Amino acid sequence: MAPSRRRSWWGWGFEDQAIDLAQRQALASGLGSLFGVPGSRAADLQVREPPALGSIDLPAPRVSMPPSLSPIASTDLYHRASHTHGKSFVDVVRAFHGDFSRPPDLVVFPRDECEVSAVLDWCGDHGVAVVPFGGGSSVVGGVSCEVDDGFPAVVSLDLSRLDGVVEIDGTSRSACIGAGAFGPDIEDALRPHGYTLRHFPQSFEHSTLGGWIATRAGGHFATNYTHIDDFVESLRVIAPAGVVETRRLPGSGAGPSPDRLFLGSEGTLGVITQAWMRLQDRPRFTTSAVAHFAGFAQGVVAARGMAQSGLFPSNCRLLDAGEAATAAGVADNTTLLVVGFESADHPVDAWMERAVEICRDAGGRVPEGVKHSSTQGFAGTWRTSFMAAPYWRDALISAGCIAETFETAVTWDRFDALHAAVTGEVRRTLERVCGGGRVTCRFTHVYPDGPAPYFTVIAPSSHGSQIAQWKEIKAAASEAILANGGTITHHHAVGRDHRPWYDRQRPDLFAGVMASAKARLDPAGILNPGVLFDPISSSPPFDTSGGQCCAPPCIGEGDPPSTPSEPPLQSFASPLSDPLRKGGSL
Amino acid sequence: MAPSRRRSWWGWGFEDQAIDLAQRQALASGLGSLFGVPGSRAADLQVREPPALGSIDLPAPRVSMPPSLSPIASTDLYHRASHTHGKSFVDVVRAFHGDFSRPPDLVVFPRDECEVSAVLDWCGDHGVAVVPFGGGSSVVGGVSCEVDDGFPAVVSLDLSRLDGVVEIDGTSRSACIGAGAFGPDIEDALRPHGYTLRHFPQSFEHSTLGGWIATRAGGHFATNYTHIDDFVESLRVIAPAGVVETRRLPGSGAGPSPDRLFLGSEGTLGVITQAWMRLQDRPRFTTSAVAHFAGFAQGVVAARGMAQSGLFPSNCRLLDAGEAATAAGVADNTTLLVVGFESADHPVDAWMERAVEICRDAGGRVPEGVKHSSTQGFAGTWRTSFMAAPYWRDALISAGCIAETFETAVTWDRFDALHAAVTGEVRRTLERVCGGGRVTCRFTHVYPDGPAPYFTVIAPSSHGSQIAQWKEIKAAASEAILANGGTITHHHAVGRDHRPWYDRQRPDLFAGVMASAKARLDPAGILNPGVLFDPISSSPPFDTSGGQCCAPPCIGEGDPPSTPSEPPLQSFASPLSDPLRKGGSL
Repeated sequence: MAPSRRRSWWGWGFEDQAIDLAQRQALASGLGSLFGVPGSRAADLQVREPPALGSIDLPAPRVSMPPSLSPIASTDLYHRASHTHGKSFVDVVRAFHGDFSRPPDLVVFPRDECEVSAVLDWCGDHGVAVVPFGGGSSVVGGVSCEVDDGFPAVVSLDLSRLDGVVEIDGTSRSACIGAGAFGPDIEDALRPHGYTLRHFPQSFEHSTLGGWIATRAGGHFATNYTHIDDFVESLRVIAPAGVVETRRLPGSGAGPSPDRLFLGSEGTLGVITQAWMRLQDRPRFTTSAVAHFAGFAQGVVAARGMAQSGLFPSNCRLLDAGEAATAAGVADNTTLLVVGFESADHPVDAWMERAVEICRDAGGRVPEGVKHSSTQGFAGTWRTSFMAAPYWRDALISAGCIAETFETAVTWDRFDALHAAVTGEVRRTLERVCGGGRVTCRFTHVYPDGPAPYFTVIAPSSHGSQIAQWKEIKAAASEAILANGGTITHHHAVGRDHRPWYDRQRPDLFAGVMASAKARLDPAGILNPGVLFDPISSSPPFDTSGGQCCAPPCIGEGDPPSTPSEPPLQSFASPLSDPLRKGGSL
Repeated sequence: MAPSRRRSWWGWGFEDQAIDLAQRQALASGLGSLFGVPGSRAADLQVREPPALGSIDLPAPRVSMPPSLSPIASTDLYHRASHTHGKSFVDVVRAFHGDFSRPPDLVVFPRDECEVSAVLDWCGDHGVAVVPFGGGSSVVGGVSCEVDDGFPAVVSLDLSRLDGVVEIDGTSRSACIGAGAFGPDIEDALRPHGYTLRHFPQSFEHSTLGGWIATRAGGHFATNYTHIDDFVESLRVIAPAGVVETRRLPGSGAGPSPDRLFLGSEGTLGVITQAWMRLQDRPRFTTSAVAHFAGFAQGVVAARGMAQSGLFPSNCRLLDAGEAATAAGVADNTTLLVVGFESADHPVDAWMERAVEICRDAGGRVPEGVKHSSTQGFAGTWRTSFMAAPYWRDALISAGCIAETFETAVTWDRFDALHAAVTGEVRRTLERVCGGGRVTCRFTHVYPDGPAPYFTVIAPSSHGSQIAQWKEIKAAASEAILANGGTITHHHAVGRDHRPWYDRQRPDLFAGVMASAKARLDPAGILNPGVLFDPISSSPPFDTSGGQCCAPPCIGEGDPPSTPSEPPLQSFASPLSDPLRKGGSL
């Protein structure tokens, strides 16, 4: 079951790509100046090593699968540990500090839909919670096994075996793809045919099609077709109550869209097993330019002009001066707007020509002119750096820092106020709880009616204090977002981290409708309890007869998640080291 | 309450635009050759006049509103007659033949959301059915008052007073618009500010924003942003159970989209009262070209190339030879592809240059070259003709013909088979039940993964036989669509006409979910019963106390909808007259 290149059981991505100790120490020595706190305190940073897997002591599994399913169920330490948490800040901090107190009792790897059904049936019969798990890259606590104590056990349902590109329809430029397929595998299968799914979230290498659909993932393209929502032609979903299969349709006006019910359902309504996805031809023409603006406000005007122009740039990424410094090494305090176009069909010079005009009209300079590339070009380079960023987040965690990103979307008329409020509230909170820190902003996507601002927060903390401090920062940011008309999440999903604000954002009656939908599709309430919905304590008593269970239901009686003690705040100093710069934006 | 220019109470659009008798007689004399039946039988056509409104005898209203609501309730003959039917073929045939046996007991014109709520409360208390009515232009039986006999009465809820553009946010290019606003009123209010909603369904003049949202309307632009779905930024909905208001958000990944639940809900889940809509700048640059293809298949290849090019033409309308002849006067049996681009931001020459190449690569000729227009141009002219077409549908009905359009969407790989099957099945059915007739096809929208084919059927029939014959034709077409992977409706909605096939297309479990949603939002099942859902017979007994009701519940005991007797088939002959050509495509 283990892939040839192993994914980290405690942090982001592949084990062999984790930032090594020397690099992390170099990083730590440069953080003081980044946080704007005295250089003398940099010595307070403690760069630690993650625990050894062998040192992790997991509670014994409380259930076992029946013989028909036991071949696909694992109690292996690596499997259970790597399915205990997702990859949110809280998840990684807990894992890094060896907190695996609430692992899945079993990790189950179904090979086909029948086995998915059988697992759901068995879990439903026994009231066992099921956490659907694609790549496990959730950054919002969406795949954590920390379910309500009412559940006698929890199973992590790893869908990675439902992989592969099953069929390609070149005429319609669509493909039937297993929900467990990871990004690179999808692209590898499509490349020889000249196609691409063209969906590149930051988690691309470590997340799956089903995960993207369940979380309404956003690709890294800035406009028009970039959300996975727009690429879904049809779905197959296995719910505890049965199978839902929608028709392959390029468009339909027949009642409310069934696909849209499952887009964003985060594993709570059913298990997405397969989808027909709209493909694109691989780009042949690409062009990019970088405009510099003296102030952030000018850059915002240019980004809005681009979003409202109908040009549909593939890239339109605004970086404030702080982001421009860390992600692109721009030291002159300018705001950057990175604009790109690409096409498989036609040169895009006319498009870029107009885009450059829009930048210049807003006061931008394009000192390096327009670059063309016949292959990946700038976007490819940028993407590599972009995808490396989460490893540096983990490196910061290992140094006892706080490193978090959060995102929203808001209409243009409210952006300035939202930006001021979020930045202000987060800075004040950082000052108060961390003694300093840094918050920067970029746009990941732009719409005609508003941008999707993405904030990066880095702050000094210390091992043991990270989660408690993070909670205060997260709450301050989320309150400011909601108060200023933003959505609690644009493409990171809701998970556990965003629940309180999601509940306030979601219209109450719609919440009721969704609860009814949940009751219809998942009557026992076993699917990803705590995410999107309040957990329903499982009603059927846990049945220990038949030798299927190896332990009585007892979760939560003695082992709540341990909360690390909280040592005093620490802060740091000394110049920004190269590794952070080279690692790209966080 | 009556607008200054009165809408027809029996047929399409404005009364003063109905085709006059002389034109209808000229039309009739040309139909024989169109239907391909002997010229000698043209004399069989009987061009009739619609009944006089005064001759319509409506059953007495069975309820009256309480004093607080009576000022907004009407029992006026014009109001009740014009709210009895929508504008489907069956609706217009019934109205034309004076069948008003099941009118609304009352037509209610709420002036604000409070009154909408109050009407829903009162109707809920008394188990009275409520049919939300925007412009009443449904062509699928979506606003018909023919509800289940279990309802003691039925109220048509006319939302036209919830009109007006309430607020414009120029920065975000969005506007808050009342759901009862008609297309031209919206454009009139936006034009001085330089904006357009850019949503031009064929019913544009006679339908409302709320109707568009409730039915997932498609605009007449061919690609990218054209569906009303994409223009909705947020919604307000009054359901019997309460109010749902979603946030103004340019994008969001926070759970399943609440807006998408109401998009396509066809008045069954709540009454849409207001929406923030994404606007566009008014186009300044427009260009169009018409490519001719020797065969339909070549035109399909070109349309597919265009759809998959990423050029996003505003127009990409493929007309088969039959459509090209009737709609564009093209007599050489060629297939036409009408391509247009427009922009408020930039010249679109580069776009059109590539589009023409795509046409030529597929074997197309562009004999008249590319046309530029600084204002409405071709699209405007075409639109005028396009919007006149339904009046000609009514003219054909008045001559005892069948004239119907239906549409679908299908992936490109299945289009040829769908086209062959639908055309073949409909032709065979026309032969069998009408002795001849004609079916033509065009594309109204093209997607990267498939087209939206739109079929027009015209056939000889006779007064009294039209509905029964239509049913056979509709069933043949719908069966062929479903069997060949199409959707039962692309933008006409489900209504009553498409229910049997919608039920088969909709996944069963999703139907259950929607029924749960309905029960939550509309517990008494009073909203548009029979549409999307099986009617729930109203459980509360009808309360005649308090003087609020003027008649006991008695619907359906003596007056089911009259089915006209069926005289023998008739067919027609003689050359195609000018009026049909001039009237544009049907």
